[in-house]
Amino acid sequence: MRQRPDCKTLAVAIALACASLAVQAADTSPALPKRPTVTDVIKASKPADWRDLDPQNTLYVELPSGRIVIELAPMYAPNTVANIKALVHENYFDGLSVMRAQDNYVAQWGDPTEKKEFKAQKKVKAEFDVAIAKDMPFTALPDTDTYAPQTGYSNSMPAARDPKAGRTWLTHCYGMVGVGRDNDPDSGAGTDLYVVIGHAPRALDRNVTLVGRVLQGIELLSTLPRGTGQLGFYEKPEQMVPLKSIRLAADVPEAERSHLEILRTDTPTFDAVINAARFRGGDWYKNSPDHVEVCNVMVPVRKKDQAQAAAPAVTPAPASK
Amino acid sequence: MRQRPDCKTLAVAIALACASLAVQAADTSPALPKRPTVTDVIKASKPADWRDLDPQNTLYVELPSGRIVIELAPMYAPNTVANIKALVHENYFDGLSVMRAQDNYVAQWGDPTEKKEFKAQKKVKAEFDVAIAKDMPFTALPDTDTYAPQTGYSNSMPAARDPKAGRTWLTHCYGMVGVGRDNDPDSGAGTDLYVVIGHAPRALDRNVTLVGRVLQGIELLSTLPRGTGQLGFYEKPEQMVPLKSIRLAADVPEAERSHLEILRTDTPTFDAVINAARFRGGDWYKNSPDHVEVCNVMVPVRKKDQAQAAAPAVTPAPASK
Repeated sequence: MRQRPDCKTLAVAIALACASLAVQAADTSPALPKRPTVTDVIKASKPADWRDLDPQNTLYVELPSGRIVIELAPMYAPNTVANIKALVHENYFDGLSVMRAQDNYVAQWGDPTEKKEFKAQKKVKAEFDVAIAKDMPFTALPDTDTYAPQTGYSNSMPAARDPKAGRTWLTHCYGMVGVGRDNDPDSGAGTDLYVVIGHAPRALDRNVTLVGRVLQGIELLSTLPRGTGQLGFYEKPEQMVPLKSIRLAADVPEAERSHLEILRTDTPTFDAVINAARFRGGDWYKNSPDHVEVCNVMVPVRKKDQAQAAAPAVTPAPASK
Repeated sequence: MRQRPDCKTLAVAIALACASLAVQAADTSPALPKRPTVTDVIKASKPADWRDLDPQNTLYVELPSGRIVIELAPMYAPNTVANIKALVHENYFDGLSVMRAQDNYVAQWGDPTEKKEFKAQKKVKAEFDVAIAKDMPFTALPDTDTYAPQTGYSNSMPAARDPKAGRTWLTHCYGMVGVGRDNDPDSGAGTDLYVVIGHAPRALDRNVTLVGRVLQGIELLSTLPRGTGQLGFYEKPEQMVPLKSIRLAADVPEAERSHLEILRTDTPTFDAVINAARFRGGDWYKNSPDHVEVCNVMVPVRKKDQAQAAAPAVTPAPASK
């Protein structure tokens, strides 16, 4: 939390002006050792540490303000993801609206009229959690979590596990995409999707089917004016944000695709990302947290043309500084 | 996460259209019992459960878009809070700018020129944590936390404790206000203040002096366009948002004050708020979390004129639904 990128001027001013404070007790805690930051780890990564997005599992949500890229998680919600892809293929979402933006919670889109017809399934059985399969990738965090026996990362997604029960589920971290539903747990068809834009509402875990994660463009949702109606719904039609379209990347011409790559989570490089979040050091940090909570690491994503550059990840860990 | 406030039409449509799905295995888990929500608890609260803000510890940050109300926490950062009040009294902040808005992290204001002079102290010794005093209010949460041995609430503020070390500190939850500093831990004078507008960056705990919490108006910061420079700083002066002024409520005429009240945390009503966040039930929830993390309860705040009305808190718990 530097005051700004270049603080030399301020530092000099402080040194000159504050000699009188030197009589206060000095901070006697030893400086933390220099430790790699997430940015350092990513700079040192190799091309093989990264993977391309699967265009069959990538959605482009086109708003007037730009594109949101979502990676889908069919391993955790196979039937719901299949139905969302069916809805996309029949252009169901085109012309619908972002109807809700609730501060520190979610932005949500769907059909304000509730009358648009579609051929895809009208309801899909809840996929709140799934059985842990042997071939399911999972990089566990060593730290305790308030809500789940175990947390970690499964491909690009934050996830939790209950090893005793043999169940696993995605967790409601910032940027996660969930399926709005009515009281009936099986009433969510994927027609109403929401994105977490605030502190992780983990009480929703295992109460909603999560289907993916926003990899790019979440600021198009997180900066929307908050709805003043109940639950952050917009009260007037003109406040809603039109959805131009939602497309599967595979259906978009190659030249119009967003070329992103994600850090593989089964690599020593990703282990180093986790360690960089857990153990802070260097000149700025005075106390290393020595722990990290699952929503405080985001699996890094970057534009492919940044691969050879020194630029950091598009989505670094929130507190990577 | 209801699809919208009134879903009757949709529910009927689903019931008619989806009879074919009835052959799928039914959800056999028993329904959760009806349990009070945070809104229910607040509706049932009594006037004595609430307290007024102390105008000597309340800041009004005036932006062109409206007012942000901050409650200060002098018990946790006495010297820094005193210096911020001194800066306010000499009108230091008037005409400065919000210079930074980093998605899922912080918005920050200060002096873009780094040249504005002031009479208050130029640096204040870090107040990252303080000794636990006997008269310090603290309502502990029963659940584990990833980062701290114990968490809970001290007046309106989320806080952590290390009982063995006898230390306590405020935690970086959504809406908390911190003091920007340079590498020197004692370099923060309160001239640069930031507000958490994303998932709690708890790695900053005990690395920054926290001085208070935004009680109202955080959406004026959380919806700001994100800065495209390093760390979310705005790259052009015209992108910055001017600070009209920061005033102590006590210095503002009574008729122009924001009349808010906060739920007392030393009451059975607040215990019931925590339980409402931990134990979910009723028609919508299918799995009760049975736990709550410190940043998933916000001590409720409401306008005083709502006290006799049925309206919910201005700032309900994020996942209170």
